[in-house]
Amino acid sequence: MEEQLSNQNNLYRPKTDITPGDRAAHMGQVPRTLWFTGLSGSGKSTLANEVEKSLLAAGHYTMLLDGDAVRMGLNANLGFSSQDRVENIRRVAEVAKLMNEAGLIVLTSFISPFREDRQRAREIIGKGFVEIYVATPLSVCEERDVKGLYKKAREGKIPNFTGISSPYEPPLSPEITVQTQGHSVQESAQELLGLLAPYLGQ
Amino acid sequence: MEEQLSNQNNLYRPKTDITPGDRAAHMGQVPRTLWFTGLSGSGKSTLANEVEKSLLAAGHYTMLLDGDAVRMGLNANLGFSSQDRVENIRRVAEVAKLMNEAGLIVLTSFISPFREDRQRAREIIGKGFVEIYVATPLSVCEERDVKGLYKKAREGKIPNFTGISSPYEPPLSPEITVQTQGHSVQESAQELLGLLAPYLGQ
Repeated sequence: MEEQLSNQNNLYRPKTDITPGDRAAHMGQVPRTLWFTGLSGSGKSTLANEVEKSLLAAGHYTMLLDGDAVRMGLNANLGFSSQDRVENIRRVAEVAKLMNEAGLIVLTSFISPFREDRQRAREIIGKGFVEIYVATPLSVCEERDVKGLYKKAREGKIPNFTGISSPYEPPLSPEITVQTQGHSVQESAQELLGLLAPYLGQ
Repeated sequence: MEEQLSNQNNLYRPKTDITPGDRAAHMGQVPRTLWFTGLSGSGKSTLANEVEKSLLAAGHYTMLLDGDAVRMGLNANLGFSSQDRVENIRRVAEVAKLMNEAGLIVLTSFISPFREDRQRAREIIGKGFVEIYVATPLSVCEERDVKGLYKKAREGKIPNFTGISSPYEPPLSPEITVQTQGHSVQESAQELLGLLAPYLGQ
């Protein structure tokens, strides 16, 4: 039998034998979404990449969702209006949730500058959500300017650029905060892995 | 360094150390999207559920994406207009692709009545795509009427109902066709698993 969820839309949640718990047990891990947030150039993707390498080497099953890559596919039909930025984050959260239901540890790397959007992601994903604030100061990000975007933004060539012409709202109580300033990538990644351990245990 | 994909949108595909091939090798399987298509009541979800059980028991790592469940989450902001039905299938294909990149064998259960939409899914997902046509005749589906939807559709209470007031375009060259009429679920699932074997081998 099936459980009817919505009379109005004739939607049913099918009764399936395999549950998210079964898939996680099969993988032998606790599914999590490690939600990296921080300014452009803060080191989110670099750190997520290092953490994924270590998790895989430790036998975990992982997936990395990157802002720019997702915008080339799933979210290719979204722009950068505030409405579209909200939808961008919502879809990523829903995909991360589905991947958690598959048993995976998901790492997401999105600026995700607004508290409200991250709060919604937290609600969608549920208890697997771990907010990781990559707290590199704006001055350092702008000095690095890996993609040359800050220069363009200062020249007024990119509208609504986070940190320059659009706000970044730092997390008020993230599960984890990482400093990258004055540390090598390896140092920051090792620190982060230590802080993550309690969330990845059984 | 990063590879710039689009000057216009300032999007970059980040260089990451872990590739989709690494994740698949770690899982020891060939990632696939088993795309079940067929009328409402054809047995898509029932068969997908049986196949997932067998694959998990055989040590594979899997995820099942079901039409109704996805419409409660990722695609909750989509209706049933033709434009929204196209977008519904496009998003599912993009999610399946990402899950294949995570190494998973994905089973999708969507009516997906239009050839053009399934062709687009095939293009998005690429070589992992396996189209499975659950070829239960309309008369049998309507007689089963598990969800009571055919009755409502005949009474004109559900607009654009596939098979009644909206067309179903059968696949012209699906990788696999399954008959369910006159067979138990277990028989159909066993037949399907046999036909799937060449696609799941290394």
